[in-house]
Amino acid sequence: MTPRRQTPRVPVTSPAAATVFTTVLTEGPVSRVDVARRTGLSSAAVTKAARPLIEAGYLTELDSATTGVGRPASPLEVVADREFFVGVKITHDELIGVVTDLRARIRVSGHLPLTSRKVDAVVSNVGELVTELLKAPRYRERTSTVGVTVAGDVDPASGHVRYSPFLHWRDVPLAELVAEVTGLEATVGNDVKAITVAEQWFGAGVGAPSFALVTLGTGIGCGLVINGDVVTGSHGVAGEIGHIPVSGDGPLCHCGATGCVEAIASTDAIVAQARTATGEPGLTMAEVITGARLGDVALRRVFARAGVAIGRGLAAMANLTGPERIIVSGEGLDAYDLFADEIRETFATHAFGAAAECELILRPLPFEEWARGAAAIAVRTLFLS
Amino acid sequence: MTPRRQTPRVPVTSPAAATVFTTVLTEGPVSRVDVARRTGLSSAAVTKAARPLIEAGYLTELDSATTGVGRPASPLEVVADREFFVGVKITHDELIGVVTDLRARIRVSGHLPLTSRKVDAVVSNVGELVTELLKAPRYRERTSTVGVTVAGDVDPASGHVRYSPFLHWRDVPLAELVAEVTGLEATVGNDVKAITVAEQWFGAGVGAPSFALVTLGTGIGCGLVINGDVVTGSHGVAGEIGHIPVSGDGPLCHCGATGCVEAIASTDAIVAQARTATGEPGLTMAEVITGARLGDVALRRVFARAGVAIGRGLAAMANLTGPERIIVSGEGLDAYDLFADEIRETFATHAFGAAAECELILRPLPFEEWARGAAAIAVRTLFLS
Ligand SMILES: [Zn+2]
Ligand SMILES: [Zn+2]
Repeated sequence: MTPRRQTPRVPVTSPAAATVFTTVLTEGPVSRVDVARRTGLSSAAVTKAARPLIEAGYLTELDSATTGVGRPASPLEVVADREFFVGVKITHDELIGVVTDLRARIRVSGHLPLTSRKVDAVVSNVGELVTELLKAPRYRERTSTVGVTVAGDVDPASGHVRYSPFLHWRDVPLAELVAEVTGLEATVGNDVKAITVAEQWFGAGVGAPSFALVTLGTGIGCGLVINGDVVTGSHGVAGEIGHIPVSGDGPLCHCGATGCVEAIASTDAIVAQARTATGEPGLTMAEVITGARLGDVALRRVFARAGVAIGRGLAAMANLTGPERIIVSGEGLDAYDLFADEIRETFATHAFGAAAECELILRPLPFEEWARGAAAIAVRTLFLS
Repeated sequence: MTPRRQTPRVPVTSPAAATVFTTVLTEGPVSRVDVARRTGLSSAAVTKAARPLIEAGYLTELDSATTGVGRPASPLEVVADREFFVGVKITHDELIGVVTDLRARIRVSGHLPLTSRKVDAVVSNVGELVTELLKAPRYRERTSTVGVTVAGDVDPASGHVRYSPFLHWRDVPLAELVAEVTGLEATVGNDVKAITVAEQWFGAGVGAPSFALVTLGTGIGCGLVINGDVVTGSHGVAGEIGHIPVSGDGPLCHCGATGCVEAIASTDAIVAQARTATGEPGLTMAEVITGARLGDVALRRVFARAGVAIGRGLAAMANLTGPERIIVSGEGLDAYDLFADEIRETFATHAFGAAAECELILRPLPFEEWARGAAAIAVRTLFLS
């Protein structure tokens, strides 16, 4: 990684400063007293940690008059415009990009089709998209960091994409390449874990000690938060629900194993099984969905089988990690009516004891959310430096 | 739970006090300066938190002369004898009990065969064993708490055993019953999670951010530590690797589902499959192991199948949670030579990307360790009050 900062950085110089900033960022406006109460820090420590953040323009003190009467509280609030962040998600055929503020609110977004999946071409496309996204007045000058996400095995510490099945990449030093082409500091991450960070900090996960976000689609991925922390894995791998072996004699997966959830229930796997079942090699996913909705028995069986594989994967996760709730999302949700019953029934059958109380929540995930996740891991670099 | 304390309790009155006590307990002797450095507390906060613990006799200041020359450090150390703890593990046919000191070091141990698996009989046996264990001079007076563990779905918060497959118990208020019969405060927990606590605090897990302890035997269980915390599950269920579905058409499990790891690879499952494969309904586990070691093909196939199921379960766990290492233990380890290759090969096949770097470590677990785990959760109640 080649850091090329455009602006002086937020002075997060101690664990206390990181705690105070995170608390105000995710729960603000909040008074110093409340920050102290929620974090266990002393009021003096909160005041000391907040001062340089206020001086650098990242935090501000709201006028206590604006928050009601009584003892002046002077709540702390983030100055969301103080710094912008770029987020780029690389899919198998396009880039999705956003610029967000400190709160990960989207200011501008854009798409760019990939010209090729070769590393150089993709990196060059990322450069183009970032230039395009930052061309509005004063956008570039307040931006230091770009987050880039991709499906697969990504090592944020080294900035390497170790394995990306859909791009056919192995050991690509993506952070370094993106830093070079954009002139920004770059951080990389797994796409699903990045969305999980966004959910935990700025979404439905705020304050939830334990949840899982499962995405269905071309890949089947999962972000896990346990005891308030995103699980990243000691070896950089975690949440790979798509590669849980759920069917001994199942089809071969692109990862090399057999019987993975993804080999049965990903969009590609469903299409492949539908083509085999019908003998029509040209079937598209849209046609498979339509046919199944019209009652085609062979196609319905393909979805039922996918639902069973997903349900088993969800049960394995619930039995092992016990999340409070599982949010199921992703473009695979379009066909959810075709396997929802099998997912729920299989989950209920295999969930052990009270694990069956874990809530399954369905939520669509607009495409920009993937890029917002990438921006969220860029925001997070503020606290990791 | 009916608390009936015999001795005034350790004055852990703040999060800082709990942090200081835990640090000295698991890493001591350690100087105040080092406690401050490791915990992020100020030296003043450490001194303030330590004072009542010293006054109550739980911590002591070592003479700095005993630790070397230079600036006097006066390291803090736990007074291990200050309080004793009883730990009882309930198996399907006997009780194993220990008395430990504050450091979970075993002072005395004992066994007692169960006269029946009925709740009243088991509770009455627990009472007998505890009386026996505490009959040495001054043992009872320094003991306030008994920890009781059992395989299955246990809710430490309510003190209930929600489901114990081997005892055929459902919703048993075990903590309350044990408190009544022993006159001690009682805490209950899942047996494998309790051993994991003992490992994390007093064993190989000290300082390890992430590891899993998997036990093979009559049941197949797992304790998970992620980001330094034992995973307990939002609904009280976690680590149930025995009930991960790894074989779609697999045998029926006692939990009601099919294809669970435990339905293929537990001791009972191996014996049942061996009896079917050989047509000899009287085979014992010892005979099955001997026969397989002598080269009986049908018996070797039973172990191979069990090894594949275990390997899939381990891979599912590694892919989801990414532990640094997996410690495999339990009485099932006796036959490990018969399925070690299949476990390792299957794990390597199904571990996704860098998850394959997760170390598999074999370690025997003497029976008393199970009871020591129960004592460790009793020690832990010091910090949860
Ligand atoms: Zn796979
Ligand atoms: Zn089961």
